[in-house]
Amino acid sequence: MTPQQARLECRNGLVAPTAGMAAGFTQCNMISLPKDWAWDFLLYAQRNPKPCPVLDVTEAGRFDTALASGADLRTDLPLYRIWRDGKLAEEVSDATDAWAEHPDLVTFLIGCSFTFETPLLEAGIEIRHITQGCNVPMYSTNRACRPAGRLQGPMVVSMRPIPADRVADAVTITGRYPGVHGAPVHIGDPASLGITDLARPDFGDPVEIRDGEVPVFWACGVTPQAAVMASRVPFAITHAPGHMFVTDIPDSRWHV
Amino acid sequence: MTPQQARLECRNGLVAPTAGMAAGFTQCNMISLPKDWAWDFLLYAQRNPKPCPVLDVTEAGRFDTALASGADLRTDLPLYRIWRDGKLAEEVSDATDAWAEHPDLVTFLIGCSFTFETPLLEAGIEIRHITQGCNVPMYSTNRACRPAGRLQGPMVVSMRPIPADRVADAVTITGRYPGVHGAPVHIGDPASLGITDLARPDFGDPVEIRDGEVPVFWACGVTPQAAVMASRVPFAITHAPGHMFVTDIPDSRWHV
Repeated sequence: MTPQQARLECRNGLVAPTAGMAAGFTQCNMISLPKDWAWDFLLYAQRNPKPCPVLDVTEAGRFDTALASGADLRTDLPLYRIWRDGKLAEEVSDATDAWAEHPDLVTFLIGCSFTFETPLLEAGIEIRHITQGCNVPMYSTNRACRPAGRLQGPMVVSMRPIPADRVADAVTITGRYPGVHGAPVHIGDPASLGITDLARPDFGDPVEIRDGEVPVFWACGVTPQAAVMASRVPFAITHAPGHMFVTDIPDSRWHV
Repeated sequence: MTPQQARLECRNGLVAPTAGMAAGFTQCNMISLPKDWAWDFLLYAQRNPKPCPVLDVTEAGRFDTALASGADLRTDLPLYRIWRDGKLAEEVSDATDAWAEHPDLVTFLIGCSFTFETPLLEAGIEIRHITQGCNVPMYSTNRACRPAGRLQGPMVVSMRPIPADRVADAVTITGRYPGVHGAPVHIGDPASLGITDLARPDFGDPVEIRDGEVPVFWACGVTPQAAVMASRVPFAITHAPGHMFVTDIPDSRWHV
């Protein structure tokens, strides 16, 4: 499936996690905010680049992006979340009506760790949530992001179980992709991140952790949604966790 | 010399290029703009991360930074430039008076290629402008940055002559520092960047290029000053090229 085909499928109603879809092309987290909140958010992202690496920002009121030719950000993601006063109001597969409520939305596209899953797979490192055909597990942590203006909140992480003898390889490989979360922020010991039960993620689905595997945690682009909740942002549209925007940009763009 | 000592020397009147000063600690480009211009600038930086990697942003009207304990951004750089309506109005070693003209200045600290000069030297690659005891040569190019709001302008590059058999090493080493300009943007052939005479840089000093050496060009944090000129920004305070802000952050922070 090409990125264009993936976006068209979503526009035509496909609702599914996008892990593994159009492999080799960059997927993005999305958050749209009224222009009045755009400065606070861009500053929040600058101050928290591991969870919030910004890959593109639209002009206010626009829904096109330099990352994907012909895309419409209102319809081309498989599933959206509409937030009101910091609370999840609804999930929709087409955000056109919600978008129309605010004529000056500024949309931020944020790097996603799915980007480095292809090189991990190529190195023979299994990605459990792809094997299981489910969404990646994500957890809120006890690590506060550095605040900016009215925005504050915890860092959210994604977790992949990695065999102990491949953890160093996973660090080395993902560390070469700083634009899409880069190296893990934490390896092993979920309790010290404030995670009490790996089987009950805050977002996404639980995955099996086998003997000899270590839970490895990467900063996650759902962190802005945690900030929306913690900061009671009046209005926001985001992707639903794991249901990303598929761009035309090859993953190799972010390799250093 | 520690970073604290370097800043204190500047505060007490030292005026000198900072290359090689407090080696191993991150130096920054600086630009202060009235708050009304802050969004345009942060977006310009996001859209042009090679020349404008933002390492910190102050609160409006503040002159402290998370990068350097006890620093005062109005006095702790060796030399400042004051810009009015896109023109260089004056150079001063103390910007306190200029700062007082606008109570809401937002200051951006931007990564500097001096950060990767230490690992280059450690790899046995000579840095000619350090050897010659002068400022690094910098050039405006024919490469336009991606505009943002009212801001547009060319990319500025710094140049280091590198022996042909070490160019690949220089790419590999600097590429691991994406937060401070990263890998070169251009190697050899200055004419195709629109540079007609390497002996006449637009900023800084010319350096000798020996037989067997290739001019290697890195994106440069003077790029915001080129945008100030090209966009006729009403008011700005910047560092003078080569006269950077010395932080407490070890260069290794930016290594991936």
